[in-house]
Amino acid sequence: MAEDVPIAIELAKKQRDISIASFFEKNRHLLGFDNPRKSLLTTIKEAVDNSLDACEEANVLPEINVELVEMSENRFRVIVEDNGPGIVKKQIPNIFAKLLYGSKFFKLSQSRGQQGIGISASVLYAQLTTGKPARITSRIGKKHSANYYELHIDTQNNKPQIIKDETVEWDKEHGTRIELDLEGSYQKGDQSVDQYLKQTAIVNPHVTLIYTNPKAEQIIFAKAAEQLPKKPVEIKPHPYGVEIGVLLSMLKLTESRTLQSFLTSEFSRVGSGTAKQICENAAVLPNTKPKDVGMEIAEKLVEGIKKTKIISPPVDCISPIGEELLEKGLKKEINAEFYTAITRPPSVYRGNPFIVEAGVAYGGEQNAEESMHLLRYANRVPLLYQQGACAVTRSVINTMWRNYGLSQSRGALPIGPVTLVVHIASVWVPFTSESKEAIAHYPEIVKEIKLALQECGRKLASYVGKKRKIQFEGKKRDYIKLFIPHVGEALKELLKLNENDEKKVEKLLAEILEKKRGHLEEIEAKNLEYDEEFANIGKGETEEENDENK
Amino acid sequence: MAEDVPIAIELAKKQRDISIASFFEKNRHLLGFDNPRKSLLTTIKEAVDNSLDACEEANVLPEINVELVEMSENRFRVIVEDNGPGIVKKQIPNIFAKLLYGSKFFKLSQSRGQQGIGISASVLYAQLTTGKPARITSRIGKKHSANYYELHIDTQNNKPQIIKDETVEWDKEHGTRIELDLEGSYQKGDQSVDQYLKQTAIVNPHVTLIYTNPKAEQIIFAKAAEQLPKKPVEIKPHPYGVEIGVLLSMLKLTESRTLQSFLTSEFSRVGSGTAKQICENAAVLPNTKPKDVGMEIAEKLVEGIKKTKIISPPVDCISPIGEELLEKGLKKEINAEFYTAITRPPSVYRGNPFIVEAGVAYGGEQNAEESMHLLRYANRVPLLYQQGACAVTRSVINTMWRNYGLSQSRGALPIGPVTLVVHIASVWVPFTSESKEAIAHYPEIVKEIKLALQECGRKLASYVGKKRKIQFEGKKRDYIKLFIPHVGEALKELLKLNENDEKKVEKLLAEILEKKRGHLEEIEAKNLEYDEEFANIGKGETEEENDENK
Repeated sequence: MAEDVPIAIELAKKQRDISIASFFEKNRHLLGFDNPRKSLLTTIKEAVDNSLDACEEANVLPEINVELVEMSENRFRVIVEDNGPGIVKKQIPNIFAKLLYGSKFFKLSQSRGQQGIGISASVLYAQLTTGKPARITSRIGKKHSANYYELHIDTQNNKPQIIKDETVEWDKEHGTRIELDLEGSYQKGDQSVDQYLKQTAIVNPHVTLIYTNPKAEQIIFAKAAEQLPKKPVEIKPHPYGVEIGVLLSMLKLTESRTLQSFLTSEFSRVGSGTAKQICENAAVLPNTKPKDVGMEIAEKLVEGIKKTKIISPPVDCISPIGEELLEKGLKKEINAEFYTAITRPPSVYRGNPFIVEAGVAYGGEQNAEESMHLLRYANRVPLLYQQGACAVTRSVINTMWRNYGLSQSRGALPIGPVTLVVHIASVWVPFTSESKEAIAHYPEIVKEIKLALQECGRKLASYVGKKRKIQFEGKKRDYIKLFIPHVGEALKELLKLNENDEKKVEKLLAEILEKKRGHLEEIEAKNLEYDEEFANIGKGETEEENDENK
Repeated sequence: MAEDVPIAIELAKKQRDISIASFFEKNRHLLGFDNPRKSLLTTIKEAVDNSLDACEEANVLPEINVELVEMSENRFRVIVEDNGPGIVKKQIPNIFAKLLYGSKFFKLSQSRGQQGIGISASVLYAQLTTGKPARITSRIGKKHSANYYELHIDTQNNKPQIIKDETVEWDKEHGTRIELDLEGSYQKGDQSVDQYLKQTAIVNPHVTLIYTNPKAEQIIFAKAAEQLPKKPVEIKPHPYGVEIGVLLSMLKLTESRTLQSFLTSEFSRVGSGTAKQICENAAVLPNTKPKDVGMEIAEKLVEGIKKTKIISPPVDCISPIGEELLEKGLKKEINAEFYTAITRPPSVYRGNPFIVEAGVAYGGEQNAEESMHLLRYANRVPLLYQQGACAVTRSVINTMWRNYGLSQSRGALPIGPVTLVVHIASVWVPFTSESKEAIAHYPEIVKEIKLALQECGRKLASYVGKKRKIQFEGKKRDYIKLFIPHVGEALKELLKLNENDEKKVEKLLAEILEKKRGHLEEIEAKNLEYDEEFANIGKGETEEENDENK
């Protein structure tokens, strides 16, 4: 009898649902919890990113406290406290103790978080490694009392499990504080918490970070700007990015009664004229009911969209740092002699608008014998891991830096005293993994990065070239000076001059050299427009002639 | 009034659940659907991997039909049909149209699939790009009729949406067939469907693959073994890998009444003696009720486990290919002159047993001027993407191949006519992303890979060294032969020999050389134990003396 029962029936008994929390419990390295050191960084990163997003959304200049306490060997307490808008009571458990819950996933506008996973994953990791619940305090205004929660995640069901829920006294009018105990490891260096906070300060000049490290030293990254970045506006999807599967489900969910109103109300950049044009190009009637659109008509619509000329999506959904502030940020944190930054015009990949920015800090205290220091950012968040897998790194390596005065081996970063910042801002940054460490290789993005690098490269080349010229001319002048007395002496012998005449000749020669030198400096001053300090060196008698630009 | 309403209340309105299907719809590159070419490969890979797992679990020698039809430009129909056990009717929709559903996730034993995502993700991708449902046929035995389903995924709720459900005639007694229409791109080369199937054939000698490519050419990879691999046995977790968070939730879910019985029944390698020892080391009573164990006792238990000597987990949960079959697989698909393979003893990372295997094919038709051809496998599945991010690649690069007779630049794969296979078999392979393309850098795994490479390397060095020696000696003999007549002539003059004596001397010299040569060949034959062909070249008068091993 047993042999008559197909094995499939036996196998079926083992089939079951897997909760997303169980999935990430087992796959936590996908979220950036590979090892104790990285886990500590990831936790702080997720908490700080959320705090910054919340403050900016509420138009509050962010002031974030980060505290790291070493509880015992490999065990740390992480405390992140912000002055943001706070979180309403009933949302607190979901936001901190449920994976895939949030407000940013469905919104097409630039934010640091986008997935609704990060902070709950940190809570999950803390719970796994120490068994301790997350402690959350949040207050939404002075008329409201502060709420305090202790939360676990029920991993089997991906649901919050409330351990404690009470009202507490809090001197802050509004804000949120999270406290987690977790297994971690604290080290300084390239991929450290300290480095993450420093890099965050560079591209977020409006943020104040107060950081207390495990040695109880307090480091303050003060703000350099009093203005919040321009707030990104939420947009609708652009028709060019839509795929047939998504279109079909949008048609099913819409409240519009006709295809034409569906197109104008659900997409950006589609007015009634464009909507009619799309329908015409698709050979579909504009008053077709969306519910009646099946596979066949949907396919026609996608073709119709492709044939219609539609202007690019609006870019107020993106908030770049801007050339000026990026340069300011670099000056604030990196001691160099030349700074430049550029912001590219907006571009689009798969219907998503994005902007690339790049900045360079050259010379100063930076090591000239080492590889360039590359700082990668996405939506103002520093990316510290997986440099090799990132589209930014690939683009930097594939740029011919020799043209810009740096030495470079094939397939490697250039060598030189340079810090290079690359920032990608988008409504949806395509990361290569949930841990958001590297940017995927979309051709449109790679192209924009390259153009940004080339623009920075040209400015850098101009500076590096001029600097070399100055050094070269300086040496030349020194040589000439060295020879003047000998020339004088030789002339004295040849022409039988007396001591006095000899001195005269020498003075004359020095004056000629000075004139020549002045002329050289004038050219240098003109070329060195990117660096005030160097321009000042060359101030001479010909300065006034150059002042016409003032 | 509006100002009195905290902004948090406004923000709260946007908070909501994100379904895992929506998440992967937006992040499909995380699952291997980055671009049309890769998407086609990923789809076939997921379907074939599932078929192989099902056949092996049901003790059926797998015979898989893969068909690729070009429907129009960039649109393909993928058909994968197996002779496996089939799937019971009510499970079909969940298995193919619900993400995070499956039987392998909770099981600690080696399988190709492990996450319950892959094939539903392919269905999702097909639906997104063509709008067409997945067509599934499955039959579990001759007394049962075949079921046919057409399925969509309701992405907002991550639930199957049944378009058609009927009983059909099918000439197969048992098996499963999936048919998907999707956007794709078909090219040959390193990361192609053809390459994936060829590499699958190398490490799965018991599998027959019948592949029809878009040009309607049929390629058959016939099986080279009549035996299924040893079936991996399911194990329980090993105490050394357990973290406090997991322990706490196990304690909550257990049916055991005492701590001692909990430890013996929920873990592998824990008998009552070991359980008592753990409790003693933790200073906890063995008859404590699991439900009464709180944070404090759980922490003590974790410490107690660390202090207790517990033997390594059983390894019958893993089914390596084996040295013999791995070599056979290489011989079947790669034309070389020297083959070797080794299987390392089992090891453990984070409580998970694993085994590393490596195989080398050297020389023959392989290009000597190019980088080594590296084939990476995890649980018998070829990994074709993200070579740079993989622990295998890193280990190969960090191995000093110059010691083994290959040239190598720093930080690069060695150069030479070599194919290297590395296989990792484990109950849980730690991939760097859901698309399962690269293995994470766990130190225990990296160490085992290096040891495997060194073992293969030494065998390779021995062969390469001997081969060079033979070539070198051959040249030497040729030179000596060249000089014999001249020596003869010289002696003739010096000693005033006649023509006859000169010939005699030359013959004598040739004989001495022959003897010497014979002696050399004997050494070579002895050393060249890894290659029959070369050993045969050296057969001479001294052969019998070497035959004592026969």
